[in-house]
Amino acid sequence: MNCLEEKILKDGLVKEGNVLKVDSFLNHQMDINLFNEMGKEWKKRFEGKQINKILTIEASGIGIACIAAQHFGVPVVFAKKSKSINLEGEMYTAEVESFTHKKKNTVIVSKKFLNEDDHVLLIDDFLANGCALQGLIQIVQAAGATVEGIGIAIEKGFQSGGTMIRNLGYQLESLAIVDEMNWETGEIKFR
Amino acid sequence: MNCLEEKILKDGLVKEGNVLKVDSFLNHQMDINLFNEMGKEWKKRFEGKQINKILTIEASGIGIACIAAQHFGVPVVFAKKSKSINLEGEMYTAEVESFTHKKKNTVIVSKKFLNEDDHVLLIDDFLANGCALQGLIQIVQAAGATVEGIGIAIEKGFQSGGTMIRNLGYQLESLAIVDEMNWETGEIKFR
Repeated sequence: MNCLEEKILKDGLVKEGNVLKVDSFLNHQMDINLFNEMGKEWKKRFEGKQINKILTIEASGIGIACIAAQHFGVPVVFAKKSKSINLEGEMYTAEVESFTHKKKNTVIVSKKFLNEDDHVLLIDDFLANGCALQGLIQIVQAAGATVEGIGIAIEKGFQSGGTMIRNLGYQLESLAIVDEMNWETGEIKFR
Repeated sequence: MNCLEEKILKDGLVKEGNVLKVDSFLNHQMDINLFNEMGKEWKKRFEGKQINKILTIEASGIGIACIAAQHFGVPVVFAKKSKSINLEGEMYTAEVESFTHKKKNTVIVSKKFLNEDDHVLLIDDFLANGCALQGLIQIVQAAGATVEGIGIAIEKGFQSGGTMIRNLGYQLESLAIVDEMNWETGEIKFR
């Protein structure tokens, strides 16, 4: 059992509707020491890959990606979820639907920060049905860049995103894969 | 001249309407080594302050806050900008208006992550008219916690936010204060 799985068992809360609340350490309050351990683990799992950039998506992916980036020695780009007046110029866009928020977002990355020379590690906090990740992959492909790997903190193994991404041939490294959870008993089973 | 000022002169772009584009290193693509130097500088400037938590606001504050947190050995909480179905329970809320995006956001922090024992360092990427910061201060006060200091990457010295915050007696440490900028010549003058 790795440090993230231990932390989930200790501080994660299972709620009705297959919701896993990890807001005390992952996506509202953020445990920076834990992020550092996660970064180390991804560095090990993506050993040998030539990665020159990390791409994540606002907002909860950013902290994890920045701390992980220190282990790879690379900059981070975060995809934005709505058009800002400060984000002019040509942009890559993809439409993604959030499982959690039940709404569609347009994900945007400036063309200045992604091109065919980039070897990209995608990082995000959650993988459920994989829509956000599909949007990021679509953007990397539109840029002619290469997805070297995908690092996820928590994968909901009972939803289809992980299977779909692995079937597409990507190296997907989820640090905790939740195969079952029960909101009545609070029990969580990892793969 | 510190590392952030040097970086702004090298890679920042002045645009019409007093817009300073720093998206190549600060708020879209993120230079993690630079963030690390900024964190070191804030640690020095807030020497002797008892800080046990950093509070920032999504999205561009998160990366800076997380890297800075490593120098303080504390967790980060980021205020959210809209109500999420995952953010249940009692929350502190404040209404803030964004200068950049010309819209109002409700800023939300769960009551679980801020209380009267907390000594908080506020971190954000930009300070212009100070509305986002006012929202964060309002939330810290509602929690009965203490604002120990405020660390800003870039302050627009020609707008009123910095003066207002200093007049309220807060220790505000902006790493780069832009007093003048000219979009026709590209010139930037720091305080």
